[in-house]
Amino acid sequence: MPKVALIMGSKSDAPSLAGCVKILRSFGVEVEVHVASAHRTPEKVAAFANHARENGFEVIIAAAGKAAHLAGVIAGHTTLPVIGIPVKSSLMDGLDSLLSTVQMPSGIPVATVAVGGGDNAAYLAAQMLALKYPELAQKLDAHRREMAEAIEADDRAIGETL
Amino acid sequence: MPKVALIMGSKSDAPSLAGCVKILRSFGVEVEVHVASAHRTPEKVAAFANHARENGFEVIIAAAGKAAHLAGVIAGHTTLPVIGIPVKSSLMDGLDSLLSTVQMPSGIPVATVAVGGGDNAAYLAAQMLALKYPELAQKLDAHRREMAEAIEADDRAIGETL
Amino acid sequence: MPKVALIMGSKSDAPSLAGCVKILRSFGVEVEVHVASAHRTPEKVAAFANHARENGFEVIIAAAGKAAHLAGVIAGHTTLPVIGIPVKSSLMDGLDSLLSTVQMPSGIPVATVAVGGGDNAAYLAAQMLALKYPELAQKLDAHRREMAEAIEADDRAIGETL
Amino acid sequence: MPKVALIMGSKSDAPSLAGCVKILRSFGVEVEVHVASAHRTPEKVAAFANHARENGFEVIIAAAGKAAHLAGVIAGHTTLPVIGIPVKSSLMDGLDSLLSTVQMPSGIPVATVAVGGGDNAAYLAAQMLALKYPELAQKLDAHRREMAEAIEADDRAIGETL
Amino acid sequence: MPKVALIMGSKSDAPSLAGCVKILRSFGVEVEVHVASAHRTPEKVAAFANHARENGFEVIIAAAGKAAHLAGVIAGHTTLPVIGIPVKSSLMDGLDSLLSTVQMPSGIPVATVAVGGGDNAAYLAAQMLALKYPELAQKLDAHRREMAEAIEADDRAIGETL
Amino acid sequence: MPKVALIMGSKSDAPSLAGCVKILRSFGVEVEVHVASAHRTPEKVAAFANHARENGFEVIIAAAGKAAHLAGVIAGHTTLPVIGIPVKSSLMDGLDSLLSTVQMPSGIPVATVAVGGGDNAAYLAAQMLALKYPELAQKLDAHRREMAEAIEADDRAIGETL
Amino acid sequence: MPKVALIMGSKSDAPSLAGCVKILRSFGVEVEVHVASAHRTPEKVAAFANHARENGFEVIIAAAGKAAHLAGVIAGHTTLPVIGIPVKSSLMDGLDSLLSTVQMPSGIPVATVAVGGGDNAAYLAAQMLALKYPELAQKLDAHRREMAEAIEADDRAIGETL
Amino acid sequence: MPKVALIMGSKSDAPSLAGCVKILRSFGVEVEVHVASAHRTPEKVAAFANHARENGFEVIIAAAGKAAHLAGVIAGHTTLPVIGIPVKSSLMDGLDSLLSTVQMPSGIPVATVAVGGGDNAAYLAAQMLALKYPELAQKLDAHRREMAEAIEADDRAIGETL
Repeated sequence: MPKVALIMGSKSDAPSLAGCVKILRSFGVEVEVHVASAHRTPEKVAAFANHARENGFEVIIAAAGKAAHLAGVIAGHTTLPVIGIPVKSSLMDGLDSLLSTVQMPSGIPVATVAVGGGDNAAYLAAQMLALKYPELAQKLDAHRREMAEAIEADDRAIGETL
Repeated sequence: MPKVALIMGSKSDAPSLAGCVKILRSFGVEVEVHVASAHRTPEKVAAFANHARENGFEVIIAAAGKAAHLAGVIAGHTTLPVIGIPVKSSLMDGLDSLLSTVQMPSGIPVATVAVGGGDNAAYLAAQMLALKYPELAQKLDAHRREMAEAIEADDRAIGETL
Repeated sequence: MPKVALIMGSKSDAPSLAGCVKILRSFGVEVEVHVASAHRTPEKVAAFANHARENGFEVIIAAAGKAAHLAGVIAGHTTLPVIGIPVKSSLMDGLDSLLSTVQMPSGIPVATVAVGGGDNAAYLAAQMLALKYPELAQKLDAHRREMAEAIEADDRAIGETL
Repeated sequence: MPKVALIMGSKSDAPSLAGCVKILRSFGVEVEVHVASAHRTPEKVAAFANHARENGFEVIIAAAGKAAHLAGVIAGHTTLPVIGIPVKSSLMDGLDSLLSTVQMPSGIPVATVAVGGGDNAAYLAAQMLALKYPELAQKLDAHRREMAEAIEADDRAIGETL
Repeated sequence: MPKVALIMGSKSDAPSLAGCVKILRSFGVEVEVHVASAHRTPEKVAAFANHARENGFEVIIAAAGKAAHLAGVIAGHTTLPVIGIPVKSSLMDGLDSLLSTVQMPSGIPVATVAVGGGDNAAYLAAQMLALKYPELAQKLDAHRREMAEAIEADDRAIGETL
Repeated sequence: MPKVALIMGSKSDAPSLAGCVKILRSFGVEVEVHVASAHRTPEKVAAFANHARENGFEVIIAAAGKAAHLAGVIAGHTTLPVIGIPVKSSLMDGLDSLLSTVQMPSGIPVATVAVGGGDNAAYLAAQMLALKYPELAQKLDAHRREMAEAIEADDRAIGETL
Repeated sequence: MPKVALIMGSKSDAPSLAGCVKILRSFGVEVEVHVASAHRTPEKVAAFANHARENGFEVIIAAAGKAAHLAGVIAGHTTLPVIGIPVKSSLMDGLDSLLSTVQMPSGIPVATVAVGGGDNAAYLAAQMLALKYPELAQKLDAHRREMAEAIEADDRAIGETL
Repeated sequence: MPKVALIMGSKSDAPSLAGCVKILRSFGVEVEVHVASAHRTPEKVAAFANHARENGFEVIIAAAGKAAHLAGVIAGHTTLPVIGIPVKSSLMDGLDSLLSTVQMPSGIPVATVAVGGGDNAAYLAAQMLALKYPELAQKLDAHRREMAEAIEADDRAIGETL
């Protein structure tokens, strides 16, 4: 069973990440959720990331706001793929979080999704895991079809609205 | 042998992507390079992305500038992981490309790296592929040690400079 | 009778586009409204745009937020004029949508209006159609006079307010 | 023969607009080029725009930088479609020009293209004119095919480069 | 008696300009308030500005949002000093209005105050008028002392708060 | 007993600075709080800063919004360390305050913390004072452990939430 | 004879201000030029501004870059009109200078011109002075006609260029 | 003798930091210079910061570009004051570096100076150290007088230039 870690910098981020956890579990991915801070519990973060591969994690998702160093710091301690979710902050709606997450130096990438993109972090993790677990590709394809059908239903209904 | 596609929106992006190709090949990853445009050759892009999985590709890297729709459009046609490289443009040094690449709607993620982050796209692709090809994890770890040693050598030398 | 298509990326955009539809219809322009997504239903979007001219459409209006690829993708599939409405998003009030819509590469223009500029998309479409349907020019001129009169009425009343 | 006016705010903008003129003429569109300033020769601008339709113009293209009021001012004096080209300025690469051009109030749209998008202004004008002059649609389609072929030639050649 | 015109682009700006009018009147400055639009009633704006000096106006204050051409257009029709108030808009809290107002080309200045700076427009107008009407300088100095005393009273009280 | 001055540009900033005062006092640092304005009471500000060192102050914290000159002006009148808190303003969530505070010319630094970072100004002041008062270092270390423990408690609890 | 002070924060700004001085002198305005720093020579700045009115100055122009407090600090020490020129800096082409200059608090306005707008500072000062010295209004009008004629000459010539 | 550490994320930053080192040494401060990376040598960074206080360091200066996590990561491992220098990067002239450095979460401050503000980092470190080493305060005051004299000399000379 594929296993993913979701690390958030503050427990206040939890509500916005509920969708991320739910999507992964609906795909049959085991998710271990942690609160950890690149600045307040740096040894914990380093230890977790250093041992993540041997502990069976295959993808790490990290969500943080403002200076948002969490994903990058984790990425510096592992060669597992790290997905960064910039959390919406009060400065320009999270542009600070986005730039702090995505503008990583050469050699230490963070796979960054949109500001507040918790759901897409889950889909991206599933896409990565599908390289190894082909059944995930089928689930992703099925989800795509569902999304398309929802749009098509909206399309059929919109004529009555406008 | 793992196989990656690198699609660029314009051949003028090629020089900035040479490092990306070189890194992947040095890791033993097969790279197929294409020039294709989300707007000028949309059918080609759609066809490529639709058939990418069955054609043996496991990760797709897309690089584009300005409105930079390429990565997102590809992502809409496949559930393979898509890595987006925002190409530096003339508007605010590529902020337009970055936002067009990263701010994807729910369900269609693009794993975005830094503006001009061609090298990191390669490392990120290798990290994803390492889920399936464990020898890549070893190569990535070796590369990390080389980077660390280079920094440490710089550290030993800096005292004489400043 | 002139015919315009209005495509929105999400049905949640409908309320902000009600004015656009109303203005066009008040000018005697037929409007066909669709929900379609550049990423979730890309084939539908491509098919619609590819056949829009032969299906009698003369202008296409597309509204989308965040990465906002919809107008650009449609523009890549037709040489009909495409008007893009950047929908206000949570990042810098839609700067992401604006840049994703307007910064199109050479050869594939999108006629971009203001963020949230649904009404202006309607007026712009009518201006384009007036090239062929001269009665629209008269309606547009009449609307200009009404707007001017409204401002002048406000001007007469303002003295009592301040 | 379709007729377009191209108004630039300063003669220093001429070199960046050479492509715009050339494309329009290659499509058989008559282009009348003017230098006029919304601030330095406002009566000339107003008079030109007020009489543009009766003088046979069908589309007006306006290019200006910095505060970039030219397109909007012209749009306030005519119901002809007005295309605005934000000229690259020294402040954030023309973000000031872009916002001044695109953020027009309701009722007075400016069809805005990318910063420095002179070529796209030409293509967009041709697309508008094609509503009335069907041969332009054929020329636009032919140009699309040429662009696609150029990309495909680049695609065939790129393998040898990278 | 010194005379100032206050022109707003929309009557919806009136509430935020009440302070501007009140300050000027408290200084004994006559204020004539108008609603006029650079785009919807351009002839009115031009006529007003062209005749402002002969009609006894000595300073013109203009407030507008979004593309915010009003102050600049007025400045193009008069050599009276024009003060521009960027009205807070929905895009980046009025950065569009600010740039459209302040980034004027050489020869046509607009004396720009802060976004939403209606009060400061009044003080600035009074400062300009004080060049000719020395009693205004005394009133401005008195106001400065009042402001200083208010701050000093706040300073004395703050110790009990924090 | 170490002594710090906290100067705010407006009493309306007081609520957001309550944490700053509380933290310093909890660390046994004496805090003198003032309201003073770089523009409305400039002589007071200059006199305070000029005499701050001889009056026993060791660090000055200054909080201001919008143009936010306060910290920089104080820094020009003393060589005591000055900590600047950019107060959240209405323009891009305080980007104006941040840039006005941090972008100081060579020779006159302001130690800038995050927009709205009143608490961090207190911690930073305590860190500076700890150079001279070693017991503060112990208190800071204790606070770090408390923060780490709070995160760890959140980490233990999060599993039940998500 | 009208008298203006031009204060620059650094002598390196002198070249970009040569036009400002030249324009004022060509209008018969006496200009006294100073280098002074809001942070490095704050007492000089305060003393100059405090005594500017009694020393016969009628307008003060201040140019500064980066944090750009100079104009605002001067404005806090005088009720003469103060014109601020944001000097182009390395951060976003002077957006920091612009925001630091224009976003002044209520009661202390700075009449801000464009980034690098030294020439417009001169024209704006002349417009203010024309309230008291009517011959300046005539010179300003003459300059406007010259500018218009230059544009018209450019307009006549452009046809041969494009 | 006071002791400061200067850590740079890349040896390519060395030239821009030469002034920082020179100023500190001219003040009699011992400077130990290191190249270390928050992402490439994270254990080294953590170990250095963890032991910095016991190794006699009193202030740590960190310079980094792009995602610029270095100062924040160091600050998470020590309660010594940490000064962050955002290095100018290619994205909006270092706005990414600035935001990543300054927007730190509560409890872990970074004393941030201007983008490229290496010299000011040195002056700020000296100001902090002067709390404990009073002779530094005298040196800082002397430097202030030198700066003022340089400005005054420039002021005397400027009259001949303009």
